[in-house]
Order: sequence, then C-alpha cells, then structure tokens
Amino acid sequence: MASKKKQLVGNMVIAQSGGPTMVINQSLVGAVIEAVAAPGIQHVYGALHGIQGILNEEFIDLGKESKATLEAVANTPSSMLGSVRKKPTPEDCRQIFAILRKYDVRYFFYIGGNDSAETTHIINEEAEANGYDFRCFHICKTIDNDLRENDHTPGFGSGARFVAQAFMGDNLDNRALPGVKINVVMGRHAGFLTAASALARVYPDDGPHLVYLPERAFSMTKFLKDVKRIYGKYGRCVVAVSEGISDRSGVPIVSKFVKEVDSHGNKQLSGTGALGDLLAGEVRSRLKISRVRADTLGYLQRSFAGLVSEVDAREAREVGRRAVKAALAGHHSGSIAIQRKPGPRYAISYELVPLKSVAKETRHMPREFINAAGNDVTDAFLRYARPLVGELPKIGRFKGYPVAKVK
Amino acid sequence: MASKKKQLVGNMVIAQSGGPTMVINQSLVGAVIEAVAAPGIQHVYGALHGIQGILNEEFIDLGKESKATLEAVANTPSSMLGSVRKKPTPEDCRQIFAILRKYDVRYFFYIGGNDSAETTHIINEEAEANGYDFRCFHICKTIDNDLRENDHTPGFGSGARFVAQAFMGDNLDNRALPGVKINVVMGRHAGFLTAASALARVYPDDGPHLVYLPERAFSMTKFLKDVKRIYGKYGRCVVAVSEGISDRSGVPIVSKFVKEVDSHGNKQLSGTGALGDLLAGEVRSRLKISRVRADTLGYLQRSFAGLVSEVDAREAREVGRRAVKAALAGHHSGSIAIQRKPGPRYAISYELVPLKSVAKETRHMPREFINAAGNDVTDAFLRYARPLVGELPKIGRFKGYPVAKVK
Repeated sequence: MASKKKQLVGNMVIAQSGGPTMVINQSLVGAVIEAVAAPGIQHVYGALHGIQGILNEEFIDLGKESKATLEAVANTPSSMLGSVRKKPTPEDCRQIFAILRKYDVRYFFYIGGNDSAETTHIINEEAEANGYDFRCFHICKTIDNDLRENDHTPGFGSGARFVAQAFMGDNLDNRALPGVKINVVMGRHAGFLTAASALARVYPDDGPHLVYLPERAFSMTKFLKDVKRIYGKYGRCVVAVSEGISDRSGVPIVSKFVKEVDSHGNKQLSGTGALGDLLAGEVRSRLKISRVRADTLGYLQRSFAGLVSEVDAREAREVGRRAVKAALAGHHSGSIAIQRKPGPRYAISYELVPLKSVAKETRHMPREFINAAGNDVTDAFLRYARPLVGELPKIGRFKGYPVAKVK
Repeated sequence: MASKKKQLVGNMVIAQSGGPTMVINQSLVGAVIEAVAAPGIQHVYGALHGIQGILNEEFIDLGKESKATLEAVANTPSSMLGSVRKKPTPEDCRQIFAILRKYDVRYFFYIGGNDSAETTHIINEEAEANGYDFRCFHICKTIDNDLRENDHTPGFGSGARFVAQAFMGDNLDNRALPGVKINVVMGRHAGFLTAASALARVYPDDGPHLVYLPERAFSMTKFLKDVKRIYGKYGRCVVAVSEGISDRSGVPIVSKFVKEVDSHGNKQLSGTGALGDLLAGEVRSRLKISRVRADTLGYLQRSFAGLVSEVDAREAREVGRRAVKAALAGHHSGSIAIQRKPGPRYAISYELVPLKSVAKETRHMPREFINAAGNDVTDAFLRYARPLVGELPKIGRFKGYPVAKVK
C-alpha cells in the first residue's frame, strides 16, 4: 500500500479503564476494526482489565475475532476487556512501557475518563523519555460527562437516557401514589447526569420538581424548605439528587456514612443507599410527611442492557475509529474530543486535543445550566442535553373531564 | 341492539389500586374501549386513586377521552387514574356502595392485586346484601406475580424483563470491575420477580450466581458461605436478593431496620437501601472482600418508561377487555385469571374465577422452581418465565484468543 511517509510498523494494545458505560464497547470495536484494516498495525491486542492487564501481560488477540463477534460486543454494555481503577505509580509506568516495548507495541489506545487520560499521558512521557517511536491515544468515555475539551462524552447520552426514562416512570409512580420520592443519581462531582432527570418532564406539574447538583453547596435547611413548598403545591414531590452533593465547605453529604476510597483518592459514592436513606429520613422526621421513599439508581445507569441513545452509540464508535485514524495519520498522541458546532441544529466535530488537556481535572456544569436558586436546571441545559439522549418514550395523560357531583 | 336477555343498563366505574405496573393502563384502556362500545353502559367513569376517589366522589368521564389519548395512556406506565393503598373498613364499604348507587353505577371494575380483589369482593357482598343488580369485577395486576388462580399476572412480565435486563448489564459491570454485587429485588413475599434475575444468564459463568427468595428461610451464615464459594470460583459474585427474605421464624431480615407499615399491615420493603447495605456490610466485614456493592432496584422495576414485555402488554389489555365482556355477558362478579395451557408452546386461556378465590392470600413460588440448596432457581422456572418477558437483548462476548507471553 502506497504511503508518502513511512508507516510506523508494530503491534497495538487497546484497553478499557474506569467505570463502564453502555457504549464503551462501541469505541473499542470502532478502534479494532480500523486497526485490523491498517497495514502498519500487525497484531491488535486487548489488555484485560486496563493497565493491570499490561502489567500482568494478559492480552487477547482481537484481530482474530470475527466481524459478527465484534459487532455483538459493540452492542453489549460494560467494558468487555474488563476494567480497572488503578492509578499507576511511576514504577508501574516504567514497567508498563517496558512490557509494551517487549511486545513490540507501537500503538496504544486507552479508553477511559480523566484519570485514564492522565495515565495515558504518563505512559507517553515514558516513551518519549526513552526515545521510543510510539503512538499513544486516549479515547474518551464517561457517563459523568466531566471531561474537559469535550462538549459531551460517549456514555453520557445513554446514561442520561436511562436516567430520563427512570424519572419519567417514577414521576408517574409518585403521581399514582403521592408522597416524597428522592432518587440519587451518579456523576461524582459533575451534575450532568443528575440534571438529565429534568428531561423526563412532559407536563408542567411533572417531576423531578427539584434537582440538586454537586456544583452548588447543599443545605439541608434549604432542601427541606424546597420539599415543603413543592409538597404544599402538588401534594407530592420528586427530587433528583446527585451522589456528589456537598456542603458549603466541600464535604460530601454522604461522606459521613461511607468510608471506602479508591486508589485515585475518589470516595465510594455509588453502590450504597446511604445518601437517599439519610435524606428521606430527614424529610420524614422534620416535615412529618409519612410517605417518603428513596431509590439510588445505582449501576444500572451505566450498564443497563438493551437501552442506548443511538447518537451516543454512533459517536462512541466514531471516537474509537478516529483515534486509530489519527495515529495512522502520523499524530503521536492525543485524545479525540467531541465538540459542538454552533447553530440551531445538532452538529459536532471530532478534534484531536493534547492528552494533558483532558487529564486530571474535571469539567463541571456551566453556570448557565443551573437556575439561580440552585435547585433546578435551566432551559439552556435541556436544549444542550436533548439531542444527546435521542427521542424519549411518549407519555400519555387523560384530559380528565370532571364528572359533576350528584347531590 | 338485539339481545336475548335484557341488558343491565347503568353507569360504570373503573379504578386502579395498589402498586403500579408498566402495563396497568393497558388493562384500563382495554376495559374502557370495550365499555364505551357497549349499549348497556351509559357513562364510563374513572375514580381517582381507587376507592378513595369513590369515597371523595372524584370521577372523570373516560368516555369523553379520544381514541388517541386512550392509546397514548395505554402505552404509559403507572396507574393513570392514580392508586391507593387503603383497606376499606366495613363502614367505608357501605359508603362506597351508597355512592356507586347514587351515581347509578351498575358496572364496577377494580384493577389490582389480592388486596384489591378482597375489596372488590366486599363491595360486591354489600351490593348483594342490598339486592342491588350489580356487576362487580376484579382485573388482575401485580409485578409480584402472587395472585392465586393465575399462571402469571399482568405487570409481572414487564417487571421481570426490567429485572433481567438490569442483571444482564450488572453482571457485565461486575465482570469488568470484579467484586461482590448484591441487588435487592421487589416482590414482597413472592420470589418470582427476584427469580427473573436468572433470565439474565447467557454464558455459564454469568450472574446472578446466587438467588435468595422469600420462600426459603434466609440464613446469614449460609449466605456468607455461598458468597465465599462463588467468589473463590469466579473472583466475583452477583447476588439477587428478594426484599422479602425472612429468617427461620418468618421475621423479614429488613424489618429490624424499617418501621413503616401500610393499612393492609404490609411492612414497607421498598424505597430504602437498608437491606442491601446490611448484606453488603456483612460480606465486607466477615469475608474481608473490599469491593462490595449493593443496589436496590426500587420503583424502576414497576414503572420504568419505555420498556415493556410485548406479551405482557397484550395480555394486560386482554384481561381488561374480558372483564367488561364477562359483565356484559351477564356474569355478576369475578376476576379474569390467566391460565396456561399445557404443551411445549406458550399458550394461555382467560378464565373467569370467583372474586374470593384470588382475594387475600397470595401465591408463592412453587417448590419445583427453587433448587434444593435454596439459593437458585431451576430450569423449570426459566422455562416458565421466558415466554413472559419476550426476547431479551443479545449479549456478545469475545472468544478471547490468548496471546503467548514474550520471554
């Protein structure tokens, strides 16, 4: 195959990291299909459980998988190569690089969030320091939607769709059996996924009636006042609360109850009902409302089978493909960011950005997406989020022609 | 319209009761469409929030709703007329009957579970005692699947489908980030919905690896032993636990933590993460496994928008239609039960059964659906449940061709 520049020849390793998403395998398969067709890439290896799989030299040969298997995996939720929540030490990074070199790996792709971008960046620096000709790319994913440089990230649209459909149904459940219902939503320190609950509203009195985001300090007093007001108005109240809500001094509300911390220093916010139960208990005891319930939407938000946003699935596939294309085009490193084009119709572009620009720090809900009272989202957020989740289920409602009372 | 027997002429009231389901409005709309077309039925009223709406004389005229609205409502989850968890007193029943008579109601339909069948039965007895010519029917629904006389109940198939899809995804999440994952499933004292988690299995090592049902006494010691064994085998473990699991003396495991009781004497088992957190805490502290998570699937199981089992939706519509048909055919009271025809292919019949036969007591998982160890379901259960949920999402998996280690 003719090429003006000499193509870097060697093997490829791809791996997945951090919290799974419903479309993370689209990115994997997008990259693999592109790589298998590339003459410069000899073997396409998948490392099992992220960098841990590299350290353990646990690779599978993805180039041998059939097209049918690849497509089936692409449509299956949750990181098919296995994931990891490991922050490599400098020694780990040296070892990872040594192993990649030993396997003649010249192309490395790491699908993950900001922590994974940081890891990718460190591995790339190690290669550069050793003068090793290497292509090193991060492929973005996260339901938290908190990567810098990105308008939104693959995985968010499907997670947001799940949250919206959950609140659509739960609002109707609460309408049928009125009371106060609190749903705790994932997203760590970014409120996007919790905010997506507002996409559930169809009629003016639909919940969620209150939305609490980690971007605003959470005050129990204000929360109880808000719930009391809504309950007084509608005789019911549906609340969306981010797992990451924190008090004025930045202490997560849930942190008093849960101890576990991962190796990136992140506190365990999911996989426990503690925050919802705490808030429900406060509403019950302080407002004397008897029917108060809390659900924690939990891991279903990121791994539910059989529910994706089509646009999210398409974009996830594309960032995988584009990362490999960028490497083959001669770029040395970077991350494929999704950026939105201005204009009334939804349109995006894929941009190659430096690894460092998406690493470590996270992005938060911009100010214009949160209302002044700090207990709801704005129309600007709804306009932002709607194209990402796809068309939501239709919700019917009776006109409700009243029957005159018989004396 | 010609009729051999003189048709009973009067108004109709229909209402919904108990926990919502994803297809309960199919039954409502099925009954309404049938009733609107019947010459004997003058007005078709919907009572808001079950018998509470009758007591408050809060009716809407469903006969005035457009066909499009009715169809939109049919495809919307959760009781559109509103629901109630009220067990009427004898005085309530006398009053309900007096109000129905005042509104010239000759046809009454109550969509609900076994508590609602009991209420319907009492109202019917009141009418009989007063020599009032009355048609009084129960229309079955419950995600718990615990009504006697029924092979299964409308609402279960869709709830089971949600549970299966949730476990399909969550099993993959647990495979990606191994640990112990405990999911608490609804169903009160019947294990059917929890058992449906087993429909999620595709590959031999897929979870749920353990399934605990309220039909078997729950022993913490045995549970920990089971988890330890599975974790030792697979390096991970996904557990399905019914919210209603009880100890040897019948005391619900969760009851030590939650106080609230409804007016039927049912303890609040849902809307709290207490049971999951309790079990996760035990696994963490006694088995010294660090990554242990619990999710309580919560109200999403009964009201999630945009997910139904097609067969469930169809059958729910049909029981509504058939109840009205039975009343028009001259039957005085009863409940439409779904019974399965023997044979290799899924086929059912709709049978009119006496109200008393489905009232009060509940049905449990038959012995042949539970394994000997009491920690899983049998193939007989899977054969029973598969036709009820419809085709589940395809789950792909790599063949996983290993790469030889480089020396």
